[in-house]
This record gives sequence, structure tokens and C-alpha cells, in this order.
Amino acid sequence: MKLSELALALEAELRPASHADLEVHAVASPRTAIAGKGMLVFAEDEASLQAALASQAAAILTRPTLAGDAIPARPLLLMRHPKLAFARAARLLQPPPPYTGVDSSASVHPTAQLGREVSVGPCAVIGAYTILGDRTRIEAGAVLGEGVRIGADCRIHPRAVLYPGVTLGDRVIVHAGAVLGADGFGYVRDNATGTYIQFPQQGTLVLEDDVEIGANTTIDRGALEETRIERGTKIDNLVHLGHNVRVGPNVVIAAQTGVSGSSSIGAGAVVGGQVGMGDHASIGEGVIVGSQGGILPHKHLRGPGTVFWGTPAKPLKQYLKELAHLARLARRHNAGE
Amino acid sequence: MKLSELALALEAELRPASHADLEVHAVASPRTAIAGKGMLVFAEDEASLQAALASQAAAILTRPTLAGDAIPARPLLLMRHPKLAFARAARLLQPPPPYTGVDSSASVHPTAQLGREVSVGPCAVIGAYTILGDRTRIEAGAVLGEGVRIGADCRIHPRAVLYPGVTLGDRVIVHAGAVLGADGFGYVRDNATGTYIQFPQQGTLVLEDDVEIGANTTIDRGALEETRIERGTKIDNLVHLGHNVRVGPNVVIAAQTGVSGSSSIGAGAVVGGQVGMGDHASIGEGVIVGSQGGILPHKHLRGPGTVFWGTPAKPLKQYLKELAHLARLARRHNAGE
Amino acid sequence: MKLSELALALEAELRPASHADLEVHAVASPRTAIAGKGMLVFAEDEASLQAALASQAAAILTRPTLAGDAIPARPLLLMRHPKLAFARAARLLQPPPPYTGVDSSASVHPTAQLGREVSVGPCAVIGAYTILGDRTRIEAGAVLGEGVRIGADCRIHPRAVLYPGVTLGDRVIVHAGAVLGADGFGYVRDNATGTYIQFPQQGTLVLEDDVEIGANTTIDRGALEETRIERGTKIDNLVHLGHNVRVGPNVVIAAQTGVSGSSSIGAGAVVGGQVGMGDHASIGEGVIVGSQGGILPHKHLRGPGTVFWGTPAKPLKQYLKELAHLARLARRHNAGE
Repeated sequence: MKLSELALALEAELRPASHADLEVHAVASPRTAIAGKGMLVFAEDEASLQAALASQAAAILTRPTLAGDAIPARPLLLMRHPKLAFARAARLLQPPPPYTGVDSSASVHPTAQLGREVSVGPCAVIGAYTILGDRTRIEAGAVLGEGVRIGADCRIHPRAVLYPGVTLGDRVIVHAGAVLGADGFGYVRDNATGTYIQFPQQGTLVLEDDVEIGANTTIDRGALEETRIERGTKIDNLVHLGHNVRVGPNVVIAAQTGVSGSSSIGAGAVVGGQVGMGDHASIGEGVIVGSQGGILPHKHLRGPGTVFWGTPAKPLKQYLKELAHLARLARRHNAGE
Repeated sequence: MKLSELALALEAELRPASHADLEVHAVASPRTAIAGKGMLVFAEDEASLQAALASQAAAILTRPTLAGDAIPARPLLLMRHPKLAFARAARLLQPPPPYTGVDSSASVHPTAQLGREVSVGPCAVIGAYTILGDRTRIEAGAVLGEGVRIGADCRIHPRAVLYPGVTLGDRVIVHAGAVLGADGFGYVRDNATGTYIQFPQQGTLVLEDDVEIGANTTIDRGALEETRIERGTKIDNLVHLGHNVRVGPNVVIAAQTGVSGSSSIGAGAVVGGQVGMGDHASIGEGVIVGSQGGILPHKHLRGPGTVFWGTPAKPLKQYLKELAHLARLARRHNAGE
Repeated sequence: MKLSELALALEAELRPASHADLEVHAVASPRTAIAGKGMLVFAEDEASLQAALASQAAAILTRPTLAGDAIPARPLLLMRHPKLAFARAARLLQPPPPYTGVDSSASVHPTAQLGREVSVGPCAVIGAYTILGDRTRIEAGAVLGEGVRIGADCRIHPRAVLYPGVTLGDRVIVHAGAVLGADGFGYVRDNATGTYIQFPQQGTLVLEDDVEIGANTTIDRGALEETRIERGTKIDNLVHLGHNVRVGPNVVIAAQTGVSGSSSIGAGAVVGGQVGMGDHASIGEGVIVGSQGGILPHKHLRGPGTVFWGTPAKPLKQYLKELAHLARLARRHNAGE
């Protein structure tokens, strides 16, 4: 890709403009030892800019304020958010996964409907009445149950499992080993015998456009209704979301967090790793929950931009105040002994 | 299924009895917007009963005390525990998974013994000397190692793995991605070199009748003896049980809980999510452990019906008392400043 | 194996030496009910030695100090660390997994290079340009992406997934369902729209010699650089290691622990289960972290042999002192009321 094209796509200023025809073909680490010819790097501070200028990198994404006015030693692409531009550039430079057709060892049910340029890897299993959108890739060993619907430009990595009826929007990415739409964990105890009978788990699971799911994460189907993850939400590895959970758009959930049945997370919330959320609880729009936090059943955290921490999760300010108070108390008491 | 048949099976009273021949074919959400013709719903309180009566549902499971004496707008099935009856009805109404035989892409070892009407899905792998009971279903991509024994009416969901020698009773359900019988995590340190040598992990794993295992859960085989999960126990997703663990009958373990080697959980215990249990510890019969609780190695929680919480786990009453005391202390001290 | 050969291999003293030609063929539990003819057991205390002497075991590994001077009832193998010797003996006695060749249902890309006596199980998928060392076994349903390199004598258990480019040393064991080299969890937020764009996850993942990975564990590839697990490190089930993490040699990490991106763990460290580690944090050489501990981002635990506990993790001594102080404080205050 020519620097002039990249500058246009990123709405960046190319300096000096005379390098318009220079080509970049990949992104590289700002640790410039690795950056070689044809590589694009980014710099958000003075030190990394100096290192990048001394490297073999083809061009550097950086802030106008860092660049100064002198003619730079290497071509610069100037914009306010170089890291965001770098992520965008990586996407532009990365070739789409190739179209490889349906592997002869895959098992595709005759009633499945495959869009244009759908690829299905070796030993993948595509169930009856599934619908796969254009350019979607099902990698080796993935299993799609009966009636699964997947939009366009999705990528289902090896050995992911989608239970019957699970529905995905466009551009959804599911990493290896994730299990979508298994039965939720709902039982009714028979007090006469002490045994448990499964409460019906016959609902659905919907992942909207641009959702990304980490490796070995599990998201259960609804019991009688649906579990839904709204557009743009990103979920890390080994996360568990129970039945009837609703996660709003553009939420980020880090690894190993668990959300019990019928809880919800609002738009734009950020949830750290290993957080535990009881049933029928909620995290409000824009709330931030620190790692390992615990939210009790039926509790509701509110306040866009408010950081919650600890178990039970409290606003960070209150938490720190209480900790400091107890520490002071202990010190004084100690001094008085 | 006719209402009269259902009433008989659930030991419920049908009111009015004139609807005996009406048919129901599925259960639906008590949120009645979804409940349509032929659907069975349940109501445990006045509000949901009113909503159900206003819906298109074919019949409503509810309590005699809620129903009153008037002739109802829709047929009622009356019994003391409508939710339990609803779960039972769902099971009665749900058709058994169909018999589909052995898929041509499955790999079944010639020495494997398959009972009557065993189904094996695409790309599933059945090892040497395995024994599968009648009507058991092995779904797509599941892998059963050498010498695995599975009883009747079991369902092994896609991509579950059973290591060699694992033994399952009847009606066991294993969800997708679960790994049963992998090596336990036991090593002996060679102090001369700082390296670790595996302690032998050659024992077995037994799951008794009616055990259900969640997606991507891992249960290790015994080191030299066995790991055993007794009848009727239900385990959620992403749970880890180490080698030599013994879980009693009718236990419930929620998602992401981890149990270290050689620990045990007694009959009828309820263990919340993300609980951590050190090695050689025990949870006694009927004990309840709250989510995210931590049980130290060699500790033993006792007392049927007692709720334990926190790390290290204490009886909830004691825990709350200590918390309240510290809060009071802090407040008073504060007031005195 | 003859006792004389075993004694030689373990550098143990055989007593009485007259049993040199007796054969052992397997190890068994020190709980001697199970130990039968031809079995080797070990005893580290007086009670288990007495039990072992009363069993049918062929020979007993124990300490010289326990053995005394009398002629023993059963042949003894004497050395200072009987448990370590037992682990070594188990390895010597266990036959290597058999060479079974490439199963006809496996999908092996024509450009893959297989060493001598490589076995590939049913429905396994071996991608383009992969290189597999001598005697390595790829079990049923495992998936190796393009360009994966695996050394000699490795064992990849069923349904493990290695993303493209992942590199393994010799004698590496990967248990079922583990996912190696998936994309790391790195996104840049576009503040204008609230959406997240993936930061490029194009680095690599290297596992050095003798590393062992538990079932359903996930280790992400580097973002632009590498994730690396050094030689001899053992990782339990359901562990998560993020992008750019570096784990030193001979480290032990117990189940369900999570390590965020760009953090590191030093040589010989021991990390308990369910530990959470923020990004850019470090655990120093030889440090021990108790289960469920939490390490904040950018924090560094130092001191070989020092035990850290709690959240945020503190040296255990300090932690216990603070707990005790608060308890004392509460008691006194209580007494004064």
C-alpha cells in the first residue's frame, strides 16, 4: 500500500509529502529492533519516536506535537491518535483470510445454505438447515449444530462449537474451543428426594455484528428466552456467561470473568478479569469493574465512568477510604499499646 | 400430550376436568408474550398467573392456593411445586434426541462395542475396546479414548474428550469441550536441578448415573487411585476438579469453581461460582459455599445447611458480625477524631 | 524391569541384594490394598512402610532411616527421596505411547514435514508447512495451523489447537482442548464512536523443551513480539496467559490462574490456583504466590522463597500480622463496650 493511500485512509498528514509513492506492507513493533523495510510503526512518546527514526521502518505514525517542524529522518504520518491509526492500518494491510472452498473431509449437511466464497476447513461439521453468509470461514474441526445462522465475513476458529439455533451477525469472530449455546445451569430441586431436575434450557443465543469471542469461552443459551451479546462487544478467553444474560454494545470483558444467569451489562462497560457476577445483577452503562471484583446477586452498579473494586464491589474511592481508615486506626491503636 | 395424561404423570389436578383431551406440545416462558397455542407455562405468584391467564397458553401449572375457587379462564394444572412440575413436564414433552446411527465420517475402532440404537456423529472418534450403552449419543467431533465405558441413554456433546479408561454411568450428559480424565497436576521437584518430574497419573475417573457436566469443564483422573463424581451431581461450565477428588451425590457446583487434588465434597452440598478449594480439604454434607469463597488446604467445612463465605471461608453469620463490628469501630473512631 | 536394573537407574540401594532378578512392571498406590504382584510402591513414613510391607507389592522405595537394620519382609530400594525416585521409576516402567502411523481419516497437508515414527490420530488436521519431530504423537482431532513447528517426542492430546506459527520444543505435552497462540485481547477504543478496533495480534508463541500444558488452558500469541514459556515449566488446567507474557524455566502454575498481557514470571516461581495478575506486573525468581492472590498491574513481587498472599498480594507474614492486629483490635473494643 502506498503511503499516500494509507494517509488518505487514516485521514493523516504525510510529511514530507514527497514520499507518497513509498510502499508499506505490514505493521511492526514500536521496539524498533524488529522494524525493517516496508514496515509501519507508531510512536506515542519522544523516546519511541527517536528509536523509530533510527530504525529501518518505512514510515512512522505519530502525533503532530511530537513531530516538531524539522524535516524528519523518515516519513511521518501525523494524526492525534497514532495507536488507533496503527490498529486501523494493521487491518488495512492484513490480507483477508484466503478463500479455500469446502474441504473434502468436512461434513456439510445437504440442507445447509452456503453464501458466496464460504470456506469450510478439514473435519468441520456443518449441521442441517444452517445458513452461512458470504465470505464466512469455518476453520478445521468446528461444529455448527442444526439451524445455526451466521452472517457475512465471520470467522469461526478451529474446534469452536455452536449449538443448534445459535445466531451470529456479520464480522463475528469466535476463537478456538469456544462453546456457544450450551444448556444453561438451571435445575429445580426435588425436596422429597434431594435430586435435581433440569429446568428447560430451550432458549436461544444471539451474537450481533462485530462481536469477538475468546478461546474456550462459554456462553449459554437462554432458558426459555434468549441470551444476547450486542454489537461490537469483545470478550476474552475462558469467560463464562450464563443463560438469559444480556451484554450491551461495545462492552469489553477480560479473561476468566463469570456472569451468572439473568444478569446484564450496559453499553460501553469495561469488566476486568476474574470478576464474578451473581444472578439478576447488573453493571450499568459505562461502569468499570476492576479485576477479581465480586458483585452480589440482585445488586446494581451504576454511574458511567465510575470504577468499582473488591468484593462486594464498591466505588473505588469509597473502598480506598475505608482501607486507609482501617490502616490508620490500626496504627493509632498500636501506638497506644 | 393430552392434559389428562400430563396431569396423571405430574400427579396434578386438572381444573376444569373438561379439558382432558386438550393437547400441549411444548413449555414456554412465564413471560406470556411468548406463550402461544399448545404451550404449557407455570405461575408461582399472582402477577404471573394473571399474565398467563391473559395469554394464548394451552394450560398453566400453578398452586391450588393461587388458583382460588372460580372457574379459570384457561385450564389449570394444580400442584404444590409448579416450577418442579414444569421442569418435569418439559422433560416429558421434549422428544428424545433422534437415533441417527453411525455417521460415515466417524472413526469407530473395530473392537468398540456399541449397544442398540447408539448414534455417533460426524468426525467423532471411538477408541479401541470402548463400550457404549443403548441409545447413547456421541455427537460430532467427540473423542473417546481406549477402554472408555459409557452406560445407556448418555449424551456426549460435540468435541468433548474422554481420556482412556474413563467410566460413565447411565443418563450422563457431558457438554461440548469438556475434558474428562486428563492427567492430574502432580509433580515432584528434584531439588538438585530445580526441575519437576511428573508423579504418576495412572488412576481412573468415574462419573455415576445422572451426572451432568458443563461446557469446557475439566475433571482429572486419579493419580494412582480414582476421581469419582457420585450420582445426580450437576457441574457447570469451566469448572476444574483435580485428581483424586470425590464429589458426593446430588451436589451442585457453579461455573469456574476449582477443587484441588484429594479434596472432597459431601452429599447435597451447594458450591457457588469461582470458589477455590485447596488440596485435602472438604466440604461437608449439605454445606453451602458462597461464590468466590476460598477454602484453605486441609480445612473442613461442616454443618448441613450452614452457609460459608469469604476467604478463608467462614460461616456467613460470623463473617457478617465481624464486618459489622469493624464498620462500627471505624465509625466510632471517626466520630471521636 | 529387574530390581537390579531399577536400583541402578535410580541410584538406590537394593536390600536384600539377593532379589536382584525379581521383576517389577508398574507403580501402585502406597495405599497397599491396591498394590499387587509386580508392583512398586513407596513409603515416606513409618505407617505407610508397615502397610507396604504387609502388601503383595514386589518392592518398596523408602528412606534408609526408615528401613532400620533388620532384614525386611519385602525387597527395599533405599534412597533419600523415595517420592522423587517413585516418579522416576513410573516413567521408566511406563511404555512409550505406541507408534501408530498416520490415520487414514487425518488431514495432513502435502507440504507438512513429518519426522520418523510420527503418529497422527483420527480426524487430526496438520496444516501447510508444519514440521513435526521424531516420535511426536498428534492425537485424535487435534488441529495444527500453518507453519506450526513441533520438536521430537512431543504429545499433543485430542482436540488441542495450535494456531499458525506456534513453535514447540522437544518433549512438550499439551493436554486436550488447550488453545495455543490465539489472538491476544488487545483493542484500541475509538473515542469518537465508542467502538473498539483490534490492536494487531501478529506475534508468536514459543514453548520450550519439557513444557507441559493442562486441559483447556489458553495461551495467546504475542501482539507484535512473542509470548514465551521457558523449559520445564508446568501449567495446570484452565489457565489463561495473555499476549507477550514471559514465563521463566521450571515454573509451576496451578489451575484457573490468569496472567494479563506483558507480565512475567521468574525462574522457579510457584503460582497457586485462581491467582490473577494484572498487566505489566512481575513475579520474581523463586517467589511463591498463594491461591486466589491478586497482583495489581505494574506491581512486582520480589524475594526468592517469599510467600505472597491476598489481594493486593502481600508477604504472608505481613498479611497475617495485619489480620491478627485487626482481630485483636476488634476484641478489645468489644470488651470495652
